[in-house]
Amino acid sequence: MRLRNKPWAKAKLKEYADFVIQEPEQHRGKWGEVFTKDQPLHIEIGTGKGQFITGMAKANPDMNYIGIELQESVIVSALDRLIEENLPNCKLMNVNGAELAKYFTSGDVSRIYLNFSDPWPKTRHEKRRLTFASFLKVYESILVKNGEIHFKTDNQGLFEYSLISFSHYGMKLNYLSLDLHNSDYEGNIMTEYEEKFSLRGSRIFRCEVQFMSK
Amino acid sequence: MRLRNKPWAKAKLKEYADFVIQEPEQHRGKWGEVFTKDQPLHIEIGTGKGQFITGMAKANPDMNYIGIELQESVIVSALDRLIEENLPNCKLMNVNGAELAKYFTSGDVSRIYLNFSDPWPKTRHEKRRLTFASFLKVYESILVKNGEIHFKTDNQGLFEYSLISFSHYGMKLNYLSLDLHNSDYEGNIMTEYEEKFSLRGSRIFRCEVQFMSK
Repeated sequence: MRLRNKPWAKAKLKEYADFVIQEPEQHRGKWGEVFTKDQPLHIEIGTGKGQFITGMAKANPDMNYIGIELQESVIVSALDRLIEENLPNCKLMNVNGAELAKYFTSGDVSRIYLNFSDPWPKTRHEKRRLTFASFLKVYESILVKNGEIHFKTDNQGLFEYSLISFSHYGMKLNYLSLDLHNSDYEGNIMTEYEEKFSLRGSRIFRCEVQFMSK
Repeated sequence: MRLRNKPWAKAKLKEYADFVIQEPEQHRGKWGEVFTKDQPLHIEIGTGKGQFITGMAKANPDMNYIGIELQESVIVSALDRLIEENLPNCKLMNVNGAELAKYFTSGDVSRIYLNFSDPWPKTRHEKRRLTFASFLKVYESILVKNGEIHFKTDNQGLFEYSLISFSHYGMKLNYLSLDLHNSDYEGNIMTEYEEKFSLRGSRIFRCEVQFMSK
C-alpha cells in the first residue's frame, strides 16, 4: 500500500479515544472493560483501512473486535470509518503486531485474523512474515485454549509457506479453500485489497488453523 | 478413466511373473528378495498405465518401485511399458490398495505416491478417498519411521480435503505447491493424466506429508 505522509494523523488518533485504544497495556487481562459488553474478543493484525474489521463488527454484534495497525497514515482511514459507523463492539489499536504480548495475556483473545499480510517473499525476510514461528508463539500465548487463526491472502507463496509453518508448529488445519470466491463459503467479508484484486481475477486462498491444547 | 473390457488381461498378468508380482503376500517383510538389489521401496497406489512409476524407476536406479493397480484392463498397459523398458527396479501388483496391510508390514515401504486419485466428490463417499483416515492408518502401518506420502492432483476439492485429513491425523506438511507446473520444483515425472490435463490448463497441486514418529 502506498503510504501518504499525514502529519496530523497522530493527533487525530489521540483525539478519538473512544475508538482508538490509548495505553492498551493498561487493559491487559481485562479487555471486557474497554467495550460496552464483555464478550469474546477477535483481533485483526494489519487492519489497514478497516473495511474487514468494521464489517465483521457489524455482522457479529455478539463479539468484540480490535483492528491493529501500525501505520498511522492508514489507520486514520479506519478511524474515519469507525466515527461514521459508531459501532460499540469495534476499536482500533495503533501498535506493532510483533508486540502483542505487551497488550494481551493468555486467554484475552478468542480469534486472530490475518488478511493479505505482507508476503515478504525474500527468504532472508522470512522472520518478518506474520506466520513465522516466532509470531505463532506470540499468538498462542494470547489466545484462548484451542483458539484459531483465520488467514486469507492472494499470495500463493505466502500461503504455501504459512500452511507448512502452521503444520510444523503442530497446529491443526480445520478449514481450507484454495479458491475462496468460487467456494461455498458464506459470510466472507472482503478487505479493501481483496475487493480490488479479486476483481482483477486473483485467486484468494483461505484457511482456519487451531493451536492444539497442551 | 474409461475401462475397456480386456478378457485376456488376467492371463497376461500371470504370464509375465517377472514384472507382475504373483502371490505378493509371500513377500511380506522381505521385499528386497523380489528385486535385483535390496534397496528402499517406493510404491504408487493407483498406478494406471504406469508412466509415472516407470519414469521414476528409470530416473532413480537406487530405489525399488512397485506400481499398484486394481484394474486389470489398465495395469496391462503398464505391463506393456515394463516389458519394453525391462527395468530391474520396477514391478507391478494387481491388488486392491485398501488391502495393503496384507502385503506389507511395518517398515517395508519407504514412500507412498498417490497421483490423481479418484476424488469421490460426494460426502457419502468420503471413506473411499485414498486420503481418508482409515487409509492413512494403513499407510502408517507399512511405512518406515518418518515415512512420507507424496501426493499430487488437479482436483482442488480432493486436495483441500486431503490437507485437512493429513493435519487431523497429526501428519506434518513438508512441501506444498499450489501450482506445480509453474513452481521451481525439479524432476517432476508426469502421469498420463497429468500430461493431458495440464496441457488443458488445469492447475496441479502437490504436497509431501510425513507421519510423525511415535
